[in-house]
Formats: sequence, C-alpha cells, structure tokens
Amino acid sequence: MHQKAWKYIINSKHILLVSHVSPDGDTLGSVLALYDVLKKLGKKVSLYNFTKELPRIYDFLPNINRIKDTIPNHFDLVISCDCGSFDRLKIPRGDYTLINIDHHISNEYFGDVNLVDTSSASAGMVVYKLLIKNCVKISKNCAICLYVSIVEDTGFFSYSNVDKQTFKDASSLVELGVNPAKIASLLKSRQSLAKVRLLGFVLNNFELYNEAKIAFIYINKEVLLETGAKRYDTKNIVNYLRDIVNVRVAVMILEEEHGGFKVSIRSEDEIDISSIAKDFDGGGHKNSAGFEVIGSDFKEISKKILKKLEDKLV
Amino acid sequence: MHQKAWKYIINSKHILLVSHVSPDGDTLGSVLALYDVLKKLGKKVSLYNFTKELPRIYDFLPNINRIKDTIPNHFDLVISCDCGSFDRLKIPRGDYTLINIDHHISNEYFGDVNLVDTSSASAGMVVYKLLIKNCVKISKNCAICLYVSIVEDTGFFSYSNVDKQTFKDASSLVELGVNPAKIASLLKSRQSLAKVRLLGFVLNNFELYNEAKIAFIYINKEVLLETGAKRYDTKNIVNYLRDIVNVRVAVMILEEEHGGFKVSIRSEDEIDISSIAKDFDGGGHKNSAGFEVIGSDFKEISKKILKKLEDKLV
Repeated sequence: MHQKAWKYIINSKHILLVSHVSPDGDTLGSVLALYDVLKKLGKKVSLYNFTKELPRIYDFLPNINRIKDTIPNHFDLVISCDCGSFDRLKIPRGDYTLINIDHHISNEYFGDVNLVDTSSASAGMVVYKLLIKNCVKISKNCAICLYVSIVEDTGFFSYSNVDKQTFKDASSLVELGVNPAKIASLLKSRQSLAKVRLLGFVLNNFELYNEAKIAFIYINKEVLLETGAKRYDTKNIVNYLRDIVNVRVAVMILEEEHGGFKVSIRSEDEIDISSIAKDFDGGGHKNSAGFEVIGSDFKEISKKILKKLEDKLV
Repeated sequence: MHQKAWKYIINSKHILLVSHVSPDGDTLGSVLALYDVLKKLGKKVSLYNFTKELPRIYDFLPNINRIKDTIPNHFDLVISCDCGSFDRLKIPRGDYTLINIDHHISNEYFGDVNLVDTSSASAGMVVYKLLIKNCVKISKNCAICLYVSIVEDTGFFSYSNVDKQTFKDASSLVELGVNPAKIASLLKSRQSLAKVRLLGFVLNNFELYNEAKIAFIYINKEVLLETGAKRYDTKNIVNYLRDIVNVRVAVMILEEEHGGFKVSIRSEDEIDISSIAKDFDGGGHKNSAGFEVIGSDFKEISKKILKKLEDKLV
C-alpha cells in the first residue's frame, strides 16, 4: 500500500494537499510535512483548507502561509490527511486520484489508496511511516511538522493512543532536529488574554450536580463578547471541569450565534457518553462527544441532558 | 562510579532511602523505584521524608505509604535522590555511607559516592541508568515510579531537559508495562475543587503592567481560606499567567501564614530573573526563581519588585 501510494505521488503532475475543516495540529502538521517532502522532489504542490482563518497558534509551522482557502485548477492527485470522511475535505469529486492518509477508526476508506493505520497516534505518524518506507530524507522542517502532529493528538503524550512506538518516533524526530521545549512553548505559552479570561469565567461559574459527579458550564454570547474570546477558544475548555477530582462527567453548553446550542461532553474513562450524544443526533468517542440542540431555553435543555447523565451514572 | 555505588548497596545491611523536603514526583518516584529493586534483592530498606503529609496526588505510587517521617536506627547506607544539598535531606550526619543520586547542576557532591548526571531529565533517570548498568531486572512497579519521575520533571516532555534519550527511556519503560495514559490521568485529572477555585481566583484577579508584559497576582490568607486551597496548591499556578501571549514575566506574591510574603517569578526563555531573586536573597533558575520578603505592606513590596522587573525588560 505504501509503495502504491508512492507510485501515484511520483507519477503525479500537480498534487493538492487537503487538511480537514476546523483544522488542528495533526491535520496541518501532516500536510505541511508532505509539502516539504514533495517540493524537494520537484513536484507542483498546492495546499487547501476550507477554513478562512487558521488557528493562530500554528503560525510557526513551516509553510503554513501557503495553505489557501481556494481550490486550484487541474490537479491530478489529492492527498487528504487526518480526515475520516470525504465531506470533511470540502472539495468536489472530480477527475483525480485520491490518497486518504488517516488514523481514525471511523475512517470511511473514501480514497483510491487508503493509508489508514488506526494504531498510529496521529495522521502525521502515518505520513512518517510512508516516508520511511520509501527511504525519503526527512528535513528538520518536516520533522517539526510531524512532531507537532504527535503532541497535538496525544495531548503531550497523555492519551490512550500513546505506546512505545510513539516515544520511539518522537525520539527519532528529536534526532532530526526537533526542539521539544521550543515546540511546547510555542503551543502552550501563547494563550490569548481573551482565552485566559474565558477560562477564568468557566472556573468561577461552573455548577456541580449529583454529589459533584457532574459539572456544567453555560457560556452565552455575552460571555464571549465580554471576554473577547472566539468560539474556537471554547475548544476543550470543558476538560478543566472533567479534571476535578470527583467529577465524572463535564458538560459545556455554548450558545450558538444564530440560535440553538452546541453541547460538548467529556467523561472519565469508564463512562461511555457517546450514546447520549447519539440520542441528540450528535457523535464522538466514548469519553468525548458532542451535539447541537435547536431551541432557546437553556434551562430546559440542560435539565434534559442532566436527566440522561444521571441515568448513566446510576 | 555506578559499580562502586552498587558495591556499597550489595554490602549494606540496612539502607535508608531519603527524598527531599517539599517532595515532588521525581524525588518520590526515584526512591520508590529503588525500594522496589532493593527489597527484591532481599535488603532491609527504610524510606524517610521530612514532610508529614505527602502530596495526595502521588498516592498511586507503589509503596508510597511506606515512606515515614521518622528516621530509623542503625542504618549503614543512605541513598538520597534528587537532592542538590545535604540540608534538604533533613537527616543528621552519622556513621553511614552516603550515595547521592541527582541531576541538578547545583548539586554539592555531598555523598561518599555521587551519581550526579546533569544531562538526565530526572533523578529517576539516573537511578534507571544505575539499574541498567548493573543488569537489574526492572519490574512494572519500578518502571511506573521511574516514568513518573520523567513526566514530573519534564512537565510531560515540555521542558528544555528533554532530549532524544528522554523519549528512548520513556519508550523502554512503556515496554516494561507502564500505561502512559493512566499515569497522565492520575496526575492531571484529580484536581481538588479547592485548587480549581484558586485558579479561578487567579485568572479573575491578576493585574497587568508594562504594556501587559508583566503579570502580577497577589494571594492573601483569606483567599486560601475562602477557596479551601492548601499552600502547596499555589505551586506553579503562576505559570498560567506567564503563558499569556504578551506576558514575559509573571509574579505571584503569597502572604505567609505568620507574616511576610513568598514571591515566585516565572519568565520567558530569554529573560533571566535569577539575579532578581538573588537581590532578595532568594534562589532558583534562569526562568523560575523565588524568594521570601519580610514586611506587611504588600503594595510597597510589589512596587519594589515591579521596578526591578521594569529595569530588566528595558
């Protein structure tokens, strides 16, 4: 499979590298690692992401400014990274070959070649294996992109996708020139004042239910306005509540700009909340799921969710 | 040196393992890793720490309940781990051999044998090397203790002491049975409600000076009382302020129980604040230092510190 993918790459004329909507460090690191390699092979390469404004935190990734929100003409090969389904690419079907590089268990195998390795901690590590198997020389810039994919998708080596290979790969990337402390500082130590103020709000306004086993935070539009936080600043902020010692499930309800609410739930390892998300037509994993609710009555919605969670915790 | 140390260990009758005052995961992980090995060698071993109450967060470390705050009689060998100076052990001098295992650059070489490796990310990694060099079989419990020493002293692979060897060691420890996600969850996801409330206070009450390059937080006794936080809960909380994008130096002033203040300063990589700590008879590293101040006027003290920092930032 790795050889087949490589053959397509070698024989292509114009390669389009696509990262997924709401991009994170894994999808961006993966396509930018490939960009570095493919350019050195003398290929014509374009980078596309649907999102207009990429999260500022990744601005240090080499060549990130080459990612455009417009699709070029006449490409004959698309490589998607870290996308479980075709519709997260936001590109039309067409007369091109598609290589699907991913590590999600839910991947829909939508490519002509599917390099899907669910044992890899990040899509970047699938890219890394592809490069190694084809004896590609990896530059320091490429290594930086791959390393970011690991730390982003493992929460700095903290999630259950970390195994001995993850650390071996990290060690090899350091050998190629990655400075782990510098990357950590760039990713962790440039929090916007607005995001810090939003966290301050969350930690001062959450509510506890069910003998403090359930934590709730409601963030309405005014809070975002007052703190200056962007909607993407709310990402994972609910984890701070799940990390409280007795809390087993944490819920964030975010008022949407044009009505309705976005709900994010995080749970402890042994509590599967994906079924609750499904009940509301949402999705996600065992310990991290979400859904959207139409309506305007925050209290009614939170009561409904609370009831379901209480049943779960019995 | 490793063989000499091992010879002392083999020939000893009663070994006392000593961790430093205000213990952290490295000093505790190191002595408990050694405890596991030495007991299996059939040695008589005691564990001593000066502190009455060990931080609860480490309660999962195998055999941690064997650490006592009383010194036994008639030991002939002391092994200290992660202690830069003899006075951090809080034991009397006496008729015993002392093996000093550490990784601090400031280590005072106070032992009869000094296994001091400043290139090691943690004292635990010096212990690990000692065990490997002497072909000791490492159990899963021992590996857990050593792994905790790494993640604690590298901030989950984020500090400048991380190199390719750190990741190689982590990989080997995972191979010996360590579950990285489980350890991360035990260390990160059991925050006390009091500590979370204290963080909430900090994020809602900090002040910015000097075009937001300096962040200040003042925590008085009443805040600890109201949040229920312990004094050790304030440890590293100032990092949240240093991690704000424009902030280059963050200062926490903590009112002491019996008068005076404890000051903790954190700075960005290129700003050396150790000299400021020295001016106040304190100590520390380039980017993390602290000192104590006598007095009762918080405003006067913060003005003094601010002045020094402003001079530094010019």
